[in-house]
Amino acid sequence: MTAMIDLARLRGDLPSATTHAYLNAGTFGPVPKPAADAMREHLEEAYIWGRIGARGYAAWDGLTARARTAFAGVAGCPEDEIALTHSTTDGCNTVIWALDWSPGDEVITTTDEHPGLTAPLDELALRQGVVIREVAPTREAIAAAIGERTRLVAISHVLWTDGAVLPVPEISADAHAAGARVLVDGAQGGGALPFRAADLGCDYYTYSGQKWLCGPSGTGALWVAPDALGELHTPWPWYLSRDRRSGPEPQEWTIARRLDAGAVTLTAFAGIAAALEWRATLGVEETCARAAALAGTLRGLLEEVDSVELETPAAPSTIVAFRVPGREPADVVTRCEELGVLVRQIPTHGLVRASVAFWNDERDLERLVDAVR
Amino acid sequence: MTAMIDLARLRGDLPSATTHAYLNAGTFGPVPKPAADAMREHLEEAYIWGRIGARGYAAWDGLTARARTAFAGVAGCPEDEIALTHSTTDGCNTVIWALDWSPGDEVITTTDEHPGLTAPLDELALRQGVVIREVAPTREAIAAAIGERTRLVAISHVLWTDGAVLPVPEISADAHAAGARVLVDGAQGGGALPFRAADLGCDYYTYSGQKWLCGPSGTGALWVAPDALGELHTPWPWYLSRDRRSGPEPQEWTIARRLDAGAVTLTAFAGIAAALEWRATLGVEETCARAAALAGTLRGLLEEVDSVELETPAAPSTIVAFRVPGREPADVVTRCEELGVLVRQIPTHGLVRASVAFWNDERDLERLVDAVR
Repeated sequence: MTAMIDLARLRGDLPSATTHAYLNAGTFGPVPKPAADAMREHLEEAYIWGRIGARGYAAWDGLTARARTAFAGVAGCPEDEIALTHSTTDGCNTVIWALDWSPGDEVITTTDEHPGLTAPLDELALRQGVVIREVAPTREAIAAAIGERTRLVAISHVLWTDGAVLPVPEISADAHAAGARVLVDGAQGGGALPFRAADLGCDYYTYSGQKWLCGPSGTGALWVAPDALGELHTPWPWYLSRDRRSGPEPQEWTIARRLDAGAVTLTAFAGIAAALEWRATLGVEETCARAAALAGTLRGLLEEVDSVELETPAAPSTIVAFRVPGREPADVVTRCEELGVLVRQIPTHGLVRASVAFWNDERDLERLVDAVR
Repeated sequence: MTAMIDLARLRGDLPSATTHAYLNAGTFGPVPKPAADAMREHLEEAYIWGRIGARGYAAWDGLTARARTAFAGVAGCPEDEIALTHSTTDGCNTVIWALDWSPGDEVITTTDEHPGLTAPLDELALRQGVVIREVAPTREAIAAAIGERTRLVAISHVLWTDGAVLPVPEISADAHAAGARVLVDGAQGGGALPFRAADLGCDYYTYSGQKWLCGPSGTGALWVAPDALGELHTPWPWYLSRDRRSGPEPQEWTIARRLDAGAVTLTAFAGIAAALEWRATLGVEETCARAAALAGTLRGLLEEVDSVELETPAAPSTIVAFRVPGREPADVVTRCEELGVLVRQIPTHGLVRASVAFWNDERDLERLVDAVR
């Protein structure tokens, strides 16, 4: 599986991934050299030449376009279907507040969603009388919960807790059969699993730049299915929510750009574009396959450790979660860090979570196993 | 007025302000050396050491706190009254969507507001049946428009069109007497005029990091008066909209931090904090006074030019706007740039706009006058 990947060179581009056993892409990924270089270069340009005048505005437009193209590449879609955001959470908020709701409308979600999705849903319930129904993260439980008032099914692609991959195409089919839309929180999917957004069958897919895609913080994207765009408002509009550059009068965009979040730091656009272009040279499929295989290896190693209770979702991903009975997850994480291994805890679920990525090697996995043993 | 400012040294810290006559702080300011250094340093830290583990999380918290302290210094307020945002527009959206509205409620605004304020107000009218009443940007016109249904008065501190300073304390008194709140768009105020938010009498003041404060794009702040915070929802919630670090269970914040925008690029926090700390060493009062005096000088120079029609607001600011009859503003701006002078046009008002800042010198002003002559 690694035949196409020059691991030594790849790890050379990611120095922060080699100072520790870097097993927390689920929070922040390591920044690759081309992204650091691009950000330094943009900074230098802004510092020395400035950000205004024809040169400055051309740089702004160019960076925005490059970031959009790069994010579209991750989702395998045309640029016109991508809105640029600050985060996965921004995409959740954008969709939730872009829809018109009536009191009594229902959203089906799962018990294992991240606050980036649950926080806006809680606010939606509070402010608009929408009923949020939390069910187990399975196709069956979700299908059973969908009813006449269901307007939206809001689920993860990959659960941030135990790493289960949800059957998004099947859940989307169930939702669509009932006339509901499907919002997918792709925080742990985008860059971890290869996907073509259109093939998932959902209506909206939101993902992060700074996690599995190794970009700077404050970057992300929202994919919107073409047939789902028209009914969305622009819920947090700013100067460029309309096209102000094509002519003397502002025009409505008829593309997902209408949902762009305002004021992403331009240096961050430079970084995410370069990070994604670098990732594309490695191969998105190849890097994802390598990570999946390594995650399988880690599961095998942890199964052999008597003191570990491994989570074993039916459809596993690059996230490996486990308990160490008798020890607090926070203590396990701290002890791991003392031994040079970076993982995180999921406090609500009593779990320790390792995010296995394409830059990891077998030695990283062994270090984690040694640390928890 | 410039006795306290070492101009040669100051301009040495702003190379992009010396490659041209830099007269467009109203769009982006020049980035000072300490901000560029701090961003480079943060990048290096993220690239080499990473962004996770105890060291990474401490850096995140530390940068967030430093940015908040720095923005609080600009508004002369405690940190607890500051929410960190991506932009002035973010602050407008935050306030507008944090309030509960009923159809028929009214917002009074002026004819001269920026799309960062008018775009969310238009969306509010569309979605919630709120009536937006646009009146001339004077105390009298606003007072005459305030009625029983007025819930909010939403105005600029300094008009982005002709640079008029609005009498915010008096307008706020009028609004409060009628039970309405006051939102101030400080995009052209924060960093251009010295102010203490509490002394303005308004309820919310939103300002930008990347304009007069010389920070990176994607930074800004929203000041909220303590007595106005309680009634605000958190309209775009994210992971840290609740306090997740003080204890095992998430807690509600009782401070303006509850309104923080999610996922500001951390490198940008490093830059804005350093830019504001640098500005503080120059003196906010002193730098604002220098800019105001230079703007007065420019007005005097332009009054002598027969081909120029100067805008002469009753209370002028650091923005100087004018028409050149017989010439399109866009053409004037282009011709100025060819001659090394950076200004912008306000297409809706047929104006050319020069933003005069503390880094300018008399020669910059003369270059503009020569260019439009």
